[in-house]
Amino acid sequence: MKFGGTSMAGSERIRRVANIVRRQQAAGHEVAVVVSAMAGETDRLVTFCREANPLYDPAEYDVVVASGEQVTSGLLAMTLQALGCQARSWLGWQLPIHTDDAHAKARIEGLDSDALLASMAAGEIAVIPGFQGLSGDGRITTLGRGGSDTSAVAVAAAIGAERCDIYTDVDGVYTTDPRIVAKARKLKFVTYEEMLELASVGSKVLQTRSVSLAMKEGVRVQVLSSFIDDDATPADQIPGTMIVSDEELAKLQEDLDMERQLITGIAADKNEAKIILTRVPDRPGAVATIFGPLAAASINVDMIIQNVGRDKGETDVTFTVPSADLLRAQTLLEAQKEAIGFNRIITDAKVAKVSVVGVGMRSHAGVAATMFRSLADRGINIQAISTSEIKISVLIDEDETELAVRVLHSAYELDAVD
Amino acid sequence: MKFGGTSMAGSERIRRVANIVRRQQAAGHEVAVVVSAMAGETDRLVTFCREANPLYDPAEYDVVVASGEQVTSGLLAMTLQALGCQARSWLGWQLPIHTDDAHAKARIEGLDSDALLASMAAGEIAVIPGFQGLSGDGRITTLGRGGSDTSAVAVAAAIGAERCDIYTDVDGVYTTDPRIVAKARKLKFVTYEEMLELASVGSKVLQTRSVSLAMKEGVRVQVLSSFIDDDATPADQIPGTMIVSDEELAKLQEDLDMERQLITGIAADKNEAKIILTRVPDRPGAVATIFGPLAAASINVDMIIQNVGRDKGETDVTFTVPSADLLRAQTLLEAQKEAIGFNRIITDAKVAKVSVVGVGMRSHAGVAATMFRSLADRGINIQAISTSEIKISVLIDEDETELAVRVLHSAYELDAVD
Repeated sequence: MKFGGTSMAGSERIRRVANIVRRQQAAGHEVAVVVSAMAGETDRLVTFCREANPLYDPAEYDVVVASGEQVTSGLLAMTLQALGCQARSWLGWQLPIHTDDAHAKARIEGLDSDALLASMAAGEIAVIPGFQGLSGDGRITTLGRGGSDTSAVAVAAAIGAERCDIYTDVDGVYTTDPRIVAKARKLKFVTYEEMLELASVGSKVLQTRSVSLAMKEGVRVQVLSSFIDDDATPADQIPGTMIVSDEELAKLQEDLDMERQLITGIAADKNEAKIILTRVPDRPGAVATIFGPLAAASINVDMIIQNVGRDKGETDVTFTVPSADLLRAQTLLEAQKEAIGFNRIITDAKVAKVSVVGVGMRSHAGVAATMFRSLADRGINIQAISTSEIKISVLIDEDETELAVRVLHSAYELDAVD
Repeated sequence: MKFGGTSMAGSERIRRVANIVRRQQAAGHEVAVVVSAMAGETDRLVTFCREANPLYDPAEYDVVVASGEQVTSGLLAMTLQALGCQARSWLGWQLPIHTDDAHAKARIEGLDSDALLASMAAGEIAVIPGFQGLSGDGRITTLGRGGSDTSAVAVAAAIGAERCDIYTDVDGVYTTDPRIVAKARKLKFVTYEEMLELASVGSKVLQTRSVSLAMKEGVRVQVLSSFIDDDATPADQIPGTMIVSDEELAKLQEDLDMERQLITGIAADKNEAKIILTRVPDRPGAVATIFGPLAAASINVDMIIQNVGRDKGETDVTFTVPSADLLRAQTLLEAQKEAIGFNRIITDAKVAKVSVVGVGMRSHAGVAATMFRSLADRGINIQAISTSEIKISVLIDEDETELAVRVLHSAYELDAVD
């Protein structure tokens, strides 16, 4: 079980969390709990670090910010004890959760679970601070913001958990953002790959790395709401969304006699910006001179379109980068103007990427056609297209984002039936 | 160097501390720094623990409260780096600082200093969170409130430091409380034993355990003020009070051609309460039936007077206990009334213990006489007396505390000369 910062914000909320945990144990489960810092605490600690040294040492940053989860893990263990449970905290360096030494953005390399399993078998609830680990040279590391989801999946994998329940302030994964489409439906199941595509294009339910790790380790992850009544039983818990493998999904759908959906969800991402380089010489190696420097600067280029050659062996090259990197990309490209040989650089931050995602589309050819026709029918102009096995994304004017999402949600028959 | 919570309260104050530390390094010293949590932080964390579970598990309490010092150690390391110093934090479990497993009041058993010394020799300033350690079974321990002074002395002993400078919000140890006697003088030197007597009777400058440890390990401790100008040099630092051994004091006084004082200081303690048991049978073993149960309950009995026998082989027994334990002591004694065989129990919390302390009194017989005469001259009644090699304490009415301290401060010629 994993609880986020909102669920851990203060003694009263920690008591609600302890109740949810206790009920799972009472229902016969051995339980390990991964906790975030109290909401706002990590920000408070990061501010101290910035004040101490704007160019702070990531190793010392980790010493400071890891304390937030240390506090909540101790407090949850105590609160569980107050409810009559046996419980103890296991800090990142105590298990230990081994990571590389990339401070402030470390990756988990492994987790010693022997002591943990022995303690759980003896009836103790294990409380583990998320977000933190131990580097090879014995220093505290942290996994980067939102890393507690990844901690939870890593713990679940190490102890061979039946499930990793991630309690959040939403009650599951929806076919699209319910704030845009009132008729969005909560999904019972979603595959790891779909979840990755939905997350990377704007559904911020889980940290992407946690989903990748769950896929790699085959951990069944359930997203569900931490806001339930104090006197609820596990049976009262509103079911969330279960994230499973392709194979398990197929089996579950067969077992439950569910129809396989063509499309699972629609995602929208406004954090994209478009760059057009005009009149780039249409010769071998031209693309490398454009994208090489951007890759070297860790700027993630997403959609790329090379227009069919204009006259005189020239072409326009269009691509997208994260909005946050737009200025940096522009500066880099201007510096390479001679080498690339383009005429003008045109940028547009007012674009959005809208994607339809679904493992079902693998076996269906008409998905893209439906998308393009639906958007064209409403006069929405497509500026670029990219596809993967289970996703089709289009770049459109940012102002048309919500309209496009609604149109597509209906077109693929995702709207909830009243 | 050790800095308390007031010195570490916020980024601006941590920067001042970093400046003080940097100047010591610039003056050619290898420096290790022990820090407290930000003022108020430990209280905040303790409140969380109480809310989580009034009967909190001390092991989890330690996980929670140790985080305060973890934060300040990381922040001071970063701030030192911002000033161009090499610095790194060493947490209690990293060194490690070995303690017993008496959580929330652990005792330091040893400290591995090899890595620390290597780092310091390489020019790094070592920043160590006070108050925390590691138990034999690998869990975080804390040393009890005020334990950071003890951490500092333990680190100083382990690395063979020339000095342990403890920066506080007072600028040294005075002949008595300057709030009571305006003419109190700051002492240049005081011996460990004197400091222990002064601390245990109410001079709250250093934690008693830290002084005991310094005496055992022969660590020279200097108490001095952390409030100096940002642009001060080590030479500008107002000298504090140096706490040394008897032998070193004698040598220093000879070197400096200072006169050996008879009395070093006057201490007052209002946290005493008096208990009188009337008409206790005057027979062998009576005292054991009184003090046995109190000792078993860890109630510290200080002064004891057994009045000369009244008629019929009965006597009154008077003694003092800490005010905080008065009710508990009273309850215990009432329960033993039959066994002890006393008639009435009379208690008085409105008493104070005033003590004159000084290694010089060992060789002088007249000290006690001066004390009793001075107090009698001002009509102050002495209710009980206790003595040690370097201390004479009297129990008086609490309302006369300040008067008694002033009278004695003058009588022993401790007043500063204008």
